[in-house]
Parts: sequence; C-alpha cells; structure tokens
Amino acid sequence: MAPPAAIDVLPESDTSTFTLPDRLTIQSVAKRRAAEGRLVAGVAAIADVDRFKGRNVHAHKSKAKRWDHRFSLESSTRLPSSLKGAAQYLKNPGMISLGGGLPSSEYFPFEQVSVKVPDAGSFDTKSNYSTVSAGKHDLAEGISDFDIATAFNYGQGYGAAQFLRWIVEHTEIIHSPPYQDWSCTMTVGSTSAIDMGLRMFTKRGDWILSEEFTFPTAVEAAAPMGVRVAGVSVDADGLRADALDEVLTNWDESVRGGAKPFILYTVPTGQNPTGSTQPFQRRKDIYAVAQKHDLIIFEDEPYYFLQMDPYTGLDSPAAAPPASHAAFLQSLVPSYLSLDVDGRVMRLDSFSKVIAPGSRVGWITASEQIVERYRQHADVSTQSPSGMSQLLLFKTLDEHWGHAGYLDWLMHIRAEYTARRNVLLDACERHVPRAIASWSPPAAGMFHWFRIDYARHPQFASKSRAQIEDEIFHAVVARGSLLMKGSWFCPEGQKDGDAMFFRATYAATPLGDIKEGVRRFGQALRDVFGLEGANGHPNGSNGHS
Amino acid sequence: MAPPAAIDVLPESDTSTFTLPDRLTIQSVAKRRAAEGRLVAGVAAIADVDRFKGRNVHAHKSKAKRWDHRFSLESSTRLPSSLKGAAQYLKNPGMISLGGGLPSSEYFPFEQVSVKVPDAGSFDTKSNYSTVSAGKHDLAEGISDFDIATAFNYGQGYGAAQFLRWIVEHTEIIHSPPYQDWSCTMTVGSTSAIDMGLRMFTKRGDWILSEEFTFPTAVEAAAPMGVRVAGVSVDADGLRADALDEVLTNWDESVRGGAKPFILYTVPTGQNPTGSTQPFQRRKDIYAVAQKHDLIIFEDEPYYFLQMDPYTGLDSPAAAPPASHAAFLQSLVPSYLSLDVDGRVMRLDSFSKVIAPGSRVGWITASEQIVERYRQHADVSTQSPSGMSQLLLFKTLDEHWGHAGYLDWLMHIRAEYTARRNVLLDACERHVPRAIASWSPPAAGMFHWFRIDYARHPQFASKSRAQIEDEIFHAVVARGSLLMKGSWFCPEGQKDGDAMFFRATYAATPLGDIKEGVRRFGQALRDVFGLEGANGHPNGSNGHS
Repeated sequence: MAPPAAIDVLPESDTSTFTLPDRLTIQSVAKRRAAEGRLVAGVAAIADVDRFKGRNVHAHKSKAKRWDHRFSLESSTRLPSSLKGAAQYLKNPGMISLGGGLPSSEYFPFEQVSVKVPDAGSFDTKSNYSTVSAGKHDLAEGISDFDIATAFNYGQGYGAAQFLRWIVEHTEIIHSPPYQDWSCTMTVGSTSAIDMGLRMFTKRGDWILSEEFTFPTAVEAAAPMGVRVAGVSVDADGLRADALDEVLTNWDESVRGGAKPFILYTVPTGQNPTGSTQPFQRRKDIYAVAQKHDLIIFEDEPYYFLQMDPYTGLDSPAAAPPASHAAFLQSLVPSYLSLDVDGRVMRLDSFSKVIAPGSRVGWITASEQIVERYRQHADVSTQSPSGMSQLLLFKTLDEHWGHAGYLDWLMHIRAEYTARRNVLLDACERHVPRAIASWSPPAAGMFHWFRIDYARHPQFASKSRAQIEDEIFHAVVARGSLLMKGSWFCPEGQKDGDAMFFRATYAATPLGDIKEGVRRFGQALRDVFGLEGANGHPNGSNGHS
Repeated sequence: MAPPAAIDVLPESDTSTFTLPDRLTIQSVAKRRAAEGRLVAGVAAIADVDRFKGRNVHAHKSKAKRWDHRFSLESSTRLPSSLKGAAQYLKNPGMISLGGGLPSSEYFPFEQVSVKVPDAGSFDTKSNYSTVSAGKHDLAEGISDFDIATAFNYGQGYGAAQFLRWIVEHTEIIHSPPYQDWSCTMTVGSTSAIDMGLRMFTKRGDWILSEEFTFPTAVEAAAPMGVRVAGVSVDADGLRADALDEVLTNWDESVRGGAKPFILYTVPTGQNPTGSTQPFQRRKDIYAVAQKHDLIIFEDEPYYFLQMDPYTGLDSPAAAPPASHAAFLQSLVPSYLSLDVDGRVMRLDSFSKVIAPGSRVGWITASEQIVERYRQHADVSTQSPSGMSQLLLFKTLDEHWGHAGYLDWLMHIRAEYTARRNVLLDACERHVPRAIASWSPPAAGMFHWFRIDYARHPQFASKSRAQIEDEIFHAVVARGSLLMKGSWFCPEGQKDGDAMFFRATYAATPLGDIKEGVRRFGQALRDVFGLEGANGHPNGSNGHS
C-alpha cells in the first residue's frame, strides 16, 4: 500500500500487434460437428479434445512454452494411473472385461431425470418453458449423445466427453486461444482449481502475486500451504501493470523471505472486492510484464460475462441490448487467454455467477502440459465433477439452448445485473455523502467499492485507521445494513495511513432493500463523521470520482 | 511379503466387552424429527449437527481423544474464513445484507427438476415407479424442506443441512458411534476424502499403513506428496492384526527413512483387490493394535452394504433375504466406527457402489475436531458437493424412500451382487484348474482374487515371477478376457518368491460374459501351465481353498 515507485518502461511485446482473433462461430461449430459425425462416448470414455477443437484448425499456431521449471515437486512427480494402462486392451474385438470395478447402470435407481428451463428467445418475458429429459439408455437407443447410464457412472478427471465438447467449443468461440496446444479440463469449481493450481506450482515459503485487495478464499487456501500473497497496487482500472513490474523488478528475497514469485492470481473483470475491470490495453500491458518476468497468470473470471453498459447517471434509461451475438462478443474486453501467445495463462471459468453455483462444475483452459498435470491430480482427488450436474447442464446448454441460446442467456443475465447495479448507483447518488465517500461505477460483476476519506473523521488525530473502520462497520450494522470492511480483503493487512474501503454487493438483495441498505449506509457515514444532511436528499452531483 | 514374524500377545482392550449398540431405529428418527419441528435451512445455512444427532442422546458417552499432535502443519494452521464471521450480523432482525456475493435464485434457469425412481417395495419386480420433483421455491412455499433456490446456490463445506440430516441419521442407525462428539461432513467422493485426509495428517517423508495389496488410487494420491505406503500382510480374513502390530513394534526409522506411521488406511469389507472381509473379531483385534500404537484409522467402506450370504457351492439356490431391517442390520459385520470409543476412526462412506458414482457425494464420520479440519479445508477447495446431486439424492432417499426404503434398496442391491458373485464362483468351479489356482469366495463387494501356484510353471526355474505373471496376463488377454495383475495393487512392489494373484470383478459384466470370461481365464492357465483339461468340464471339487 506504499505509494508506487518510479517504474520501468514496459518492454515491447508481440501482443501489441494483436487484433481480435477470427473467432469460431456458432455456425462453424455446427459444421465441425457434422463433419466429425456422431459422438459416441460410453462410460468413462477417453475424450479426444483435438476432435472438439477441430483437426488442423490450430496447426499453424505455435505451441505453448514448456513449464517443467515451474511445477512443484508434488506435481512433477505425479504419475499416471497404473490400472488405466490396462484399458488399452478393451479395444480388442470381443474382449470381455473382468477388470474394472465400475458398477452396472442396472443398479442406478434413476430411470429418467428432467429439468424445466426457459426457452431461448423468452428469457426476458419468461413466457415459454420446456422440460428436457434424459433417460437411462438414451445413448444406446440413439436418442441422445448423453444419458444416465454414462453420466451417473464414474468418469475421467476432465469430465464427460459430451459436456467437455461443449466447453471446448464455447471456449474457442469466446477466446480463440492464439497457440496450438490449448486444452480444457473440468473442475469441481474455481475454488478447487485455485487449491489445485497452488499445489501444482508452489511450495511452502513461496509468494504469489494478486491485486492488493483480493478474494479472501484464495488467500485462505494459500496460507496453510505456507504460501503468501503479495498485493500489487490497483487503480480504477484494476491491477496496475507498472506496479506489478516494480514489485517483481525490486523483489528482495532476503526481505521477503521467499523467492521472486511467478504466479499472478488476478480477477480481471468485476474484480472482487474492488469491482474494477481491466481495460484491454491494461491487460496487454500486464501480459507484457508477465512475459518479461516469466509469470504464469491464473485468470479467475467468474464475472466475465457480467460486463455492463456504462452508468450514465441518476435515473437514466437502460441501454439497448447488443444487436447480435457478434456485437455482444465484440463488446467484451478480450481475455488474457485470447492474448496468450505463450500458453502462460491458466484461465478459470465458472457457471456459479451465470447459471448456478450449486452445479459445482467449472473448467480451466491452459496448455496441454498444465491441463495434463491438473487432470492427473483430479484423477486421484476430486475425480470428475458431478455427473448429475453435467447431465443437467448438457441437456440445457448443449441440446436445448445450444451455443446461440447460451449467448442469449448471458446477454439476459448481463442486462439483469446492469439494472441491479444501476439501482445501487442511483441510491449512492441519492444517499451517500460525497464529502466522505467516493467511488467508480463498476463496469462488471456484482461488487461496488466505496473509498472513505477517513481523514475527515472528527477523532482522526486520536483514533487509528482500524478503529475508525471498525466504528463505521458497526454504525452501519447498528442501522440495519451489512457491508464488508475493505481490510478483510487485504492479504498483507492494512496499516495507519492506508486508504479505507467498504464493499457492497447488488448480487441478490431485492431492489427495494438495495436502496434502503445504501440509505442506511449513507446515514451511518453522516452520523459517524458528524455531517448534516437530510435522509433521502440527493447529493446534488452526478459526477463520479 | 516376508513370512510373518513372531508376534506380541495383543493388549487388553475395552472393545473386547462390546456388544452391538442399541441402535437408533427408523421409528425413533421420525419421533426425533417431529420433536425438533420443521427444518428451515435457507441458502448456505449453518447446519446444527447436534440437532440431527438428538440433543442429550449422546451426553453420557465420553468425548473423543484430541488429535492436535497428529495434524499436519497445513491442517493445524488453517484458520476459519474471515468473511464468514460477518454472517453473525445477518441474524439481526431487519438486517439488509449488501455483504455476501451469493447470486439470486431468480437467475438460475431451472424451474423444476424431476427424477423417476422405483418405489420402495418394488425394487425386485421393478413394477412401480414415481417421479419426484423439486421446484425453485418449495422451501418458501412450504412444499418441501429443500428446493432449487437452496440446493443450487452456494453451500457450506459440509453440504446442505437438509441432506446432512439424513446422512447423520443414517450413520447413527447403522453405526451408533460410541463416543459423544462424532460428526459428519459431506465429501465430493471418497477419493477426494483420501486426498484431503492425507493432507490433514501427513507430511513429505511419512509412511502410512495399508493392506499389502490395496486400492492403487490411494497409493497414487500419496506418492506425489512424498508419502509412502507400507503394506501389512493379509490372510483370507483381510488385514492381519498380528502383522500390523509387528510392523509397528519393529518399525526402524533408519531403515525406513521415515517416522513410525500412525495412519492405517483399510478397506475392511470386500477389500479391493483381495475381496476379503474382516470378521468382527479381527476388527476388534486391529482396533486394539490401533489403541496400542495410537493410530488413526481411515475406514474406507464403499462396499460395506454389499455383504453377502455365504457361497454354498455350484448351482446352489439363492439364500432367503433377511426377514426384517433389524435382521439385515444384525447380519452386517460391525464397523470400526461402531467400535470407536476413542474417536480415532475417520470413516469414508460413498454412494458410488450402492446408488451411483456420478453423484460425487459421499461423507466422512469422525470426531468433531477432525470433521472441523476437513470442513475448513473443503471451504477453500472442493466446497460442498454438487447441490444438483444433493437435491436428487434428498428427494429419493429422504422424501421418497425414507430410511426404511433405503435399507430395502440396500438389501436389493446386496442380493443382486450376491447373484453376480455366485455366477462367477460357479464358473470358477467349472473352468479354473484348482491345480494352479486357488481362491476364497468373497463375502462382500465386487472383487474376486485368484492365487496362482506359479511354482508349477514349466519354466519356473528359468523365469522370474514377473515374467510368469506377465505371460499369464497376456495369455488371458490373447484369449479375449481381461483380469488385473495382482502386482499392480502392491504398493511396495513384488519380488521373486512372493505369491502371485489375479483380480477379477463381477461388478458390471453381463452374466453370460462373466461365465465366458472365466472360462477363457481357465483355458489360458491350462495352456500356460501345460495342463490337460477339457473346456467346460468341472474340476470335480466343490471344496474351497
């Protein structure tokens, strides 16, 4: 939290010449599938990711760098399963297997599973629903590519081929990774992916890097492993590339008690807790720093599709939705994955914020070398995510909506969160005293970050920063509203003189309660700081700090 | 694999006076629930396990021993989530939360989920099915205790209160743990529980103990952590208590290069790969050794409910099913958990072999201290298991079947596996030459273990043990049948002179293929060992080795 030091000029990077890639389109996915023929993947089938990526489509690209020098002892000594070697003989015609201990689907007490979902085209009106169903033997009976007998049995560490295909295609449509040997493997959620990623690359005594305010669970996953998180300064555009370069360039192993870090954990879009979104140029600058210092980037993107139209002031009408899928995709800030010529990004995707957290299905995209390390760990720990979840997601996202319908859903969700954000920001304009609090309207995600000018506190001279933060927190609670202290998100802690923040979310609170909760927050600030000010009276300014 | 050394007389143990506990009954569960009133547990609600266990029911029992001296650095330094502390304020009346980033169920695109399951009472005949459904707001609407809005959102590390209640009750009905502060927490499967259990108790350089032939995934999970597995001799009754005591008593740290182990990983029932089941007396003897050497026992029991009637010879009729739930429970060999006066057992339960592996839902039962360590790790890694899985399981096991129906289902599954085992054993009697192969009929699970008298191989004098094992394996494969080499299950490897085994499973292969697969195995043995013998001709002996 010290003021930023003078920085180096950033190195030249070949990302500077990037334009948006020629993305795979929904139409070309359909053609690719038709050319490949029907996917027939039985219980625990090996998935051919190259088939899902399209043969020869990526052959002109360079391969990812090798990361052998970065893997932990645990990860680099992990061997493939010995028993899986025996599976090769199952390909022999007429082979009878008395080998593997997978149960028979005959003994699964589930004949059919169904889910009622809205139809694409009616997400805003909620006028049409369909019930989509999977039977036990739909695959064998030619009814579907996926069924209960397959999904509810054991699987591979990367999940079922049927749903992995959809994930690989979706990833290519959105990000079109610019190197050849990218791959995807399912996770049981991004929190697990952080845990497994840390075990893949770090050892006790190491440091990793993140935003100076970050997702506490990542810090709490790392701490018991003896891995510390070094915070990098942020501004309204999120993580600062210059600050990242400065931390790495001036890393003093003797002061830090640990080697120069090479893992950057970042939430580029709608960052938790600051709500900031890194613009495209910032991402290119940070990628260049990552190249300079040979970093691996954990790109954690649960809020990626919750990118919003700009906030245009109190009571402004909603912006028009994107005119097409292409316009929607064009409106998204490109990901690190889409910039990743080196294969140094491990991107974490999640359904938690756009479908449902309870699916416990997510995925990572990274170079085949990293994905292989991940998958082999999954094979002896989490295994595949729930087959029940995979089947419900497949029926909805692949069979019922398809890629086009899913983009429609994402546009719908994005508009809903934008409306929620606007309710919160309007309430801030009306109720939160700008003499004390300042903020930037979030451009993505579900979090809003207030900066508090606590130098204006009446007892600033005699109270510590922590005391004032605590006083405000409890004053807000006493008035019946709960926001989070900024210091809870600070992995290295905060000290006197550091800036003070509070985090609010507009994720799930009913709209009327958002307004009232913000009003209570504003009133608490007025009371704590001894300000005059009528309840419910606008501050009179529409400008943003 | 050396011959067993002379052993100590086992110490006196207070488990020797045990009788089967007074088990909680299905009827008393219903009374307990009625007395507690309706369970109202919303999104990510804190579960009150003491309520599910029954207040004051366990107060007369001793508390578990403390395991502070056994936890790894990682586990003992893991702190609870800082943000979760803020949740206490949500109890304030009228509190508006702008705190937690949980999404609104409004944005889950699932209105209803349904599953078609057989009705209790018709499991054998498959004559009656019901479709059970969950709506989005069944909890708020008073229709059910669990719904999509709750199950599909974020949860606690131990899973949802609604399904955890069922798990706790089931555990008490079956095992009635004899100490006060036992608890349960859900897992994303027992393989993950092994991974997390190892991280809880071990460090690089440590050894753990298991059967000399064991589940390879456990070994493969441990190896990259630098944790080695010391095999303990087995006999037809599984792990030998005397051999366990001998290994521990004579443990030489300088020879082994690691401290005396204190984790015993065991599969007491239908062990993989040997198919052996430890009788009650064996379990009591092993528990006494665990007390003597202060061990923690990982009791991994996926096959616990697949305990079978004795095999009574070729073409014998099926035994009558148990006359009642009580008779069924009485027929089960008591678990380590039911003997566990000290709270030294971490029992791993799984739905994989009795419901469906794809649920990726299991649970551990252990002392509250161990469960708390597990749960806190889950909070920053796997989180809760899939809410989609939990909801389908809850609708089936709790609401539709209830505890009584689930016991009926387990009796049904047990009879099905018994029939499969009998088909395999009948085929062995008919086709496998007893001059070369010997076996004990498995009393549980899904595995059968052949011992091969390879001293009778024509080139025994000139070929190594490994060469002969490989020759047999490939001869069987060449004849169109796949069995697993015993040496693949041996964590310390096998050397010349060690016994030779092959594993067959009757889990899922169609019955006709089981017969043919065993016939091919027998023919391959005859060919490799140069035996005469007509295909399909019985060996003429019904006796078992």
